[in-house]
Amino acid sequence: MNENMNTSTIRGPLDHEIRDQIISAATEHFSHYGYEKTTVSDLAKAIGFSKAYIYKFFESKQAIGAVICTNRLAMIMEIVDAAIAGAPTASEKLRCLFRSISEAGSDLFFHDRKLYDIAAVASRDQWPSAVAHQVRIRAIIQQILLDGRASGEFERKTPLDEATKAIFLIILPYVNPAQLQYNLDTAPEAAVHLPALILRSLAP
Amino acid sequence: MNENMNTSTIRGPLDHEIRDQIISAATEHFSHYGYEKTTVSDLAKAIGFSKAYIYKFFESKQAIGAVICTNRLAMIMEIVDAAIAGAPTASEKLRCLFRSISEAGSDLFFHDRKLYDIAAVASRDQWPSAVAHQVRIRAIIQQILLDGRASGEFERKTPLDEATKAIFLIILPYVNPAQLQYNLDTAPEAAVHLPALILRSLAP
Repeated sequence: MNENMNTSTIRGPLDHEIRDQIISAATEHFSHYGYEKTTVSDLAKAIGFSKAYIYKFFESKQAIGAVICTNRLAMIMEIVDAAIAGAPTASEKLRCLFRSISEAGSDLFFHDRKLYDIAAVASRDQWPSAVAHQVRIRAIIQQILLDGRASGEFERKTPLDEATKAIFLIILPYVNPAQLQYNLDTAPEAAVHLPALILRSLAP
Repeated sequence: MNENMNTSTIRGPLDHEIRDQIISAATEHFSHYGYEKTTVSDLAKAIGFSKAYIYKFFESKQAIGAVICTNRLAMIMEIVDAAIAGAPTASEKLRCLFRSISEAGSDLFFHDRKLYDIAAVASRDQWPSAVAHQVRIRAIIQQILLDGRASGEFERKTPLDEATKAIFLIILPYVNPAQLQYNLDTAPEAAVHLPALILRSLAP
């Protein structure tokens, strides 16, 4: 599935506006009634557009879901990036990463709006936005390690790839919304204990 | 839900044998057709018993599922206990714990028999056997830490509870079958990289 396929019919600013309107209404609708249970007909009825009109802008329900998922993940990344940018040291950046990723994920997929099932489908079916999100998280971890190694906060013996992968595996259950649903209760304490253990492993 | 409630009708060795027979047939049946989709009627038909007869031994489908889940978890614990018992040092015990728990979980819930949905319901609804399983894993981690601290392999500064909890949180996605389904692909490399990182954090 290619999330860019649905852009083929964009022609100008007006089309763009209508697409945004559909996405916004679909986000509302899915967050109330769920993504899996809703059809494009339901959605068309709720928005007050014809089904054919919606298909002019999005080739499928999945194409709409993909844009919503991409938007949510972009919001999560904004929150994470801002949290990390404000941290003075590599150690603190690592703590911020754990705290912000699970808080933002909990809020944006579970509490704020119930868009969990889009996220679950996205991660089950490996939608490009979900894959790209994980690649970005892994890159952030590697950059924090490089910063900490340069400043002398972290040891330099362990191969960088190995340390990056291990930390990524530890954070993954809080990044992937399909897994996060099982960890919502423990996420706040995990955001304290996991970076603390990792930082002990990184001590020079 | 109390997994012991279904034992109230046990009267003697014959009853015990029939219970075992029902459990064995139900394990077969659920592993082919799934736990959630099967009713006690389906099960009765498949085993060749009347529905009423099955209800003489188990008060509900859940009572049958609970015994199957308990059996599976006991098999996993046997594998884990044997793996750890054979390891010469605390460090090696930790590696064995990670390796054996995810291998046994993958085999017994996913590959060997498809009993995943029993495990998913058990963990979602916090069946006593699923909760007890997690308590045992946590106790094993604490014992490994105590052994390693006594032998001088591990540092002793970090409060024992804190270290135990952090390691437990790291292993949890591979203990809980509902989460393990998302980690089956990465489980083999996780079983190498996660204990390696943890052991670096435990270095004296």
